[in-house]
Amino acid sequence: MDIVETIANTRDLIAQTRAAGKTIGLTPTMGALHEGHLSLVRRCRKECDFSVVSIFVNPTQFGPGEDFDSYPRTFDTDCAACRDLGVDLIFAPAPEEMYPRENLTWLDVDTIGDHLCGAARPGFFRGVCTVVTKLFNVIQPDIAYFGEKDAQQLAVITRMVADLNLPLEIRGCPIVRESDGLAMSSRNQYLDPEQRRQAVCLFQALRHAQQLIENGQTDTTALIDAIKTIIEKQPQARIDYISIVDRNLMQPLVKIDRPVRIALAVHLGPARLIDNIAIDPPINNKHSIRQ
Amino acid sequence: MDIVETIANTRDLIAQTRAAGKTIGLTPTMGALHEGHLSLVRRCRKECDFSVVSIFVNPTQFGPGEDFDSYPRTFDTDCAACRDLGVDLIFAPAPEEMYPRENLTWLDVDTIGDHLCGAARPGFFRGVCTVVTKLFNVIQPDIAYFGEKDAQQLAVITRMVADLNLPLEIRGCPIVRESDGLAMSSRNQYLDPEQRRQAVCLFQALRHAQQLIENGQTDTTALIDAIKTIIEKQPQARIDYISIVDRNLMQPLVKIDRPVRIALAVHLGPARLIDNIAIDPPINNKHSIRQ
Repeated sequence: MDIVETIANTRDLIAQTRAAGKTIGLTPTMGALHEGHLSLVRRCRKECDFSVVSIFVNPTQFGPGEDFDSYPRTFDTDCAACRDLGVDLIFAPAPEEMYPRENLTWLDVDTIGDHLCGAARPGFFRGVCTVVTKLFNVIQPDIAYFGEKDAQQLAVITRMVADLNLPLEIRGCPIVRESDGLAMSSRNQYLDPEQRRQAVCLFQALRHAQQLIENGQTDTTALIDAIKTIIEKQPQARIDYISIVDRNLMQPLVKIDRPVRIALAVHLGPARLIDNIAIDPPINNKHSIRQ
Repeated sequence: MDIVETIANTRDLIAQTRAAGKTIGLTPTMGALHEGHLSLVRRCRKECDFSVVSIFVNPTQFGPGEDFDSYPRTFDTDCAACRDLGVDLIFAPAPEEMYPRENLTWLDVDTIGDHLCGAARPGFFRGVCTVVTKLFNVIQPDIAYFGEKDAQQLAVITRMVADLNLPLEIRGCPIVRESDGLAMSSRNQYLDPEQRRQAVCLFQALRHAQQLIENGQTDTTALIDAIKTIIEKQPQARIDYISIVDRNLMQPLVKIDRPVRIALAVHLGPARLIDNIAIDPPINNKHSIRQ
């Protein structure tokens, strides 16, 4: 496994790999790798000849007062985990390598990035799209892997790749959860034991809403209220957003009349946690027969 | 020479070319090719194994009320000229091929694109950067050629390529002029004979300013006034902007104390004409000796 810090050396390795006729897969990460990331890396290994993991805590996607400085950095452990999985190349640039001068060029994806985390974290998707495009241009992968945990990010990047004719395919991978249902996240390590116990409320609330939809509830206001009630039972939980959106454009819906995603963000002590669940509306037999 | 209208077929041809180890050059155009374009194409032919010309009148860089509908389209003549020069591939997509759905993804280059044409034509560089990135992602050229006539566009795209680590090189080519000095432009054909006679004032004014700088004038306000006086002598000329900027960030300067570009845009009847000239400040011997 090569660990490369410069764009020039990475380009050389990629050119050799490409010349050898190998397909290239990329899993972009900010490090602090957990089982969620590793599930992407495993899939990348299985589907591509040459597996690249990028590890870069991207300053341009953090807002003022966010956790850029304190974001967990566990580089040696990350490298060991990647080596165990048979990764071929870790691209781990310093911020000065990725941003050697003031960055003036920015990518924006309208509409899809407007709500949810886009509204809660102004500039977040602009930073994500810009750095992801830079990584794509350096690594030139055939396939790139992203987790459904960051569902809005996945939707934004998928649309960006389509709109810009980027010559690669985006593959989304399912959320990996702890045994009690908490979605794996590098930010879970910010939680103290009591916050960790309360954190399960995100998934519990999502599962409860799923149950209500399966039982016929189609009113999103009622569903959001039900979710709110569950989360607010946890004394330290502070809701950032709860939203029920369509899966392509991530626009809030009034009624469950198509495949939806319920997405939420909750502050728990020092951590801002996000989670989501994709739900298809139950088949209404009466209507199906009529049509 | 292949003339291809679809992205898929273009990608196939490019993949074959790449597999044969050939370097690929791209000259992006909106058609209505004149000697300015053809100078880019000739250089591309000389420097690259495989020469691509794209012909696409890009709707997203025209503002409301601008000349998208009336922009000259001379496809057959353009193809004949490219064939004569030995072009290998013309990529000529329909708007629906380039924009098959509502485009949500946009590129912006801060600062460089703010003044001059960026201020006069809001959204212009956003449209240019977005379509050029799309063309780069489809053709994947090693080198792309742009004219210095559109000096701000060249500066914006050069910075975009650097900021985004796009794997290609941008080469700028000198302005080609008519015998009286008028910069070649597809929009010159909008001019009636009288306007065509008046249009030479753009270049005359630029040359006059160059003379003043060579004679020691460093005050940009005085230079702009001198340019204005020459242009306003032409009864149909209506000045859009006259600006003296640095060559990298295209920011207006108060004093000629570094290499500059004088750029101007002038309406003449139905045409909005632009022109510019790069000028190095004369070497001041007194200062040179002192340092």
